[in-house]
Amino acid sequence: MTVTLHVCVTCRAGQSPREGETALGARLHSAILEAGVPESVNVVPVECLSACSQGCSIALSAPGRWSYVYGRLSDVNAPDVVAGAAAYAAASDGIVPWRSRPEIFRKQSLARIPSIAVVPETAE
Amino acid sequence: MTVTLHVCVTCRAGQSPREGETALGARLHSAILEAGVPESVNVVPVECLSACSQGCSIALSAPGRWSYVYGRLSDVNAPDVVAGAAAYAAASDGIVPWRSRPEIFRKQSLARIPSIAVVPETAE
Repeated sequence: MTVTLHVCVTCRAGQSPREGETALGARLHSAILEAGVPESVNVVPVECLSACSQGCSIALSAPGRWSYVYGRLSDVNAPDVVAGAAAYAAASDGIVPWRSRPEIFRKQSLARIPSIAVVPETAE
Repeated sequence: MTVTLHVCVTCRAGQSPREGETALGARLHSAILEAGVPESVNVVPVECLSACSQGCSIALSAPGRWSYVYGRLSDVNAPDVVAGAAAYAAASDGIVPWRSRPEIFRKQSLARIPSIAVVPETAE
């Protein structure tokens, strides 16, 4: 299944960037693309995941699956982010066995959200 | 639109509950139901939103909308959670004007996730 990897590209991780300096989130985004992303992972930049105090942050999501948000990341974590996203895409239900998750996914979870139970609107 | 309000009912918010004591998350869940939830909000209990260090936590989500996760909540916040969830349901795109959000939603965001861009699988 193709999954979505949202990367906050505006994150400053609590730091004030110097003039002309690239935001830490944008650096993480670039490093993820440079790490080589499989076709099963659709990388989407986003302005703010509202996890500013725990940035840099990313989110993994796909239809019918739990969504996951991870934080306290930097560009050095890019290869692990890609590996974790690829494992999420490869798992038939999106639930990767605990031990197969990168350490940053085991220790730096900010939140997870169950898939939406689709509630049919009342027919009139 | 009917939206989903996930409430972590296992959250202990970093505390060790005494024997026989109801988990803080379960107390929040009960308080939300007692506060009176509109039909537009589908309350779904869930075991762990993986935001344990920032509990109690809830998540708001709906098809085609941003999902939001809030934390550092307790049962006294139940009326505000319901008001915020109702506003999310009532907003045509799920984006409630900043000033119309309850203070706990403005100040206690853990994360937000964009709606999933549906990527069609390649036709064989």
